Amino acid sequence: MKLLEERILKDGNVLGENILKVDSFLTHQVDYKLMKEMAKVLADKYRSQGITKVVTIEASGIAPAAYVAECLDVPMIFAKKHKNITMTEGILTAEVYSFTKQVTSTVSIASKFLSAEDKVLIVDDFLANGQAAKGLIDIIKQAGAQVVGVGIIIEKSFQDGRQLLIDSGVEVTSLARIEKFENGQVVFTQADA
Amino acid sequence: MKLLEERILKDGNVLGENILKVDSFLTHQVDYKLMKEMAKVLADKYRSQGITKVVTIEASGIAPAAYVAECLDVPMIFAKKHKNITMTEGILTAEVYSFTKQVTSTVSIASKFLSAEDKVLIVDDFLANGQAAKGLIDIIKQAGAQVVGVGIIIEKSFQDGRQLLIDSGVEVTSLARIEKFENGQVVFTQADA
Repeated sequence: MKLLEERILKDGNVLGENILKVDSFLTHQVDYKLMKEMAKVLADKYRSQGITKVVTIEASGIAPAAYVAECLDVPMIFAKKHKNITMTEGILTAEVYSFTKQVTSTVSIASKFLSAEDKVLIVDDFLANGQAAKGLIDIIKQAGAQVVGVGIIIEKSFQDGRQLLIDSGVEVTSLARIEKFENGQVVFTQADA
Repeated sequence: MKLLEERILKDGNVLGENILKVDSFLTHQVDYKLMKEMAKVLADKYRSQGITKVVTIEASGIAPAAYVAECLDVPMIFAKKHKNITMTEGILTAEVYSFTKQVTSTVSIASKFLSAEDKVLIVDDFLANGQAAKGLIDIIKQAGAQVVGVGIIIEKSFQDGRQLLIDSGVEVTSLARIEKFENGQVVFTQADA
């Protein structure tokens, strides 16, 4: 997605070897206009497939996922990364390892929000090692629901998350795909939409 | 806001003495239609006041705050509850004590996103003891910016958060105000909008 790539080049900051900071429009400050444009592209891609739920994981996935859900006119569910006193029963969980934080956390969704009839589109802000999306797929499958696809804003294509998801039989649609960082600059490869 | 009160009565669950679970439309699964309606009401209330930023705190505040920001055509910033490897410098922080979790956490916003020219509307899903909103006000004031108001989806009016914020000179607009829980039922008092 050209608009997103241009925004990454303009406002993204490459930190160290493989970190892209996009906090001015996606992960901390949110540009709703860009979110809406991105959501339209993802929703159009999956509109014909009868999506019934959009699922993401807190926190940076929530804004883009909300707009995708709006475009598809379905509810959005955000998986919880942390234990919550009001989540008392009927919880589906998966263990998710974060390579950047080097910790394993338990991600959860209340089972009442997913059923065997659901066709789910996962939406997340970043795809790197794919562990978060894999955890969400695991949870959705526990509910007997179908994962129709994974919609990603920014994919680090030099990491193995995309292949991991494709190997598990799920289609990946990334709006920006980063081939590499070169001299502190982002180099894109062909995006999916 | 009548639509919200009706939804709370229909889909909210009272747990124990003072917990209201609204995970089917606000805090876990998100109903974008309701978010949009609520956002309109909050945005209309503050439209004339020259708001330049909407600030919330992850994670449940993000969806309503995004829609309020859209209605006001300004950026939305969500404060971080957890340390992040990409937040390396220029961070404004406040300590926030959670009575429910009985832990103090450090809430942060990158200083580059707030300036002395900003007029900020804080949006959050719940107001109970007011500690989260107080932390956000603290951060916004550190930046020299003005807090124009606090927009709340659900206020527990039997707790002292509202008074705490009013005492600090900030206007509070709550779309639903819960006077008490009686026999497992929600009893509302007059909302602000």
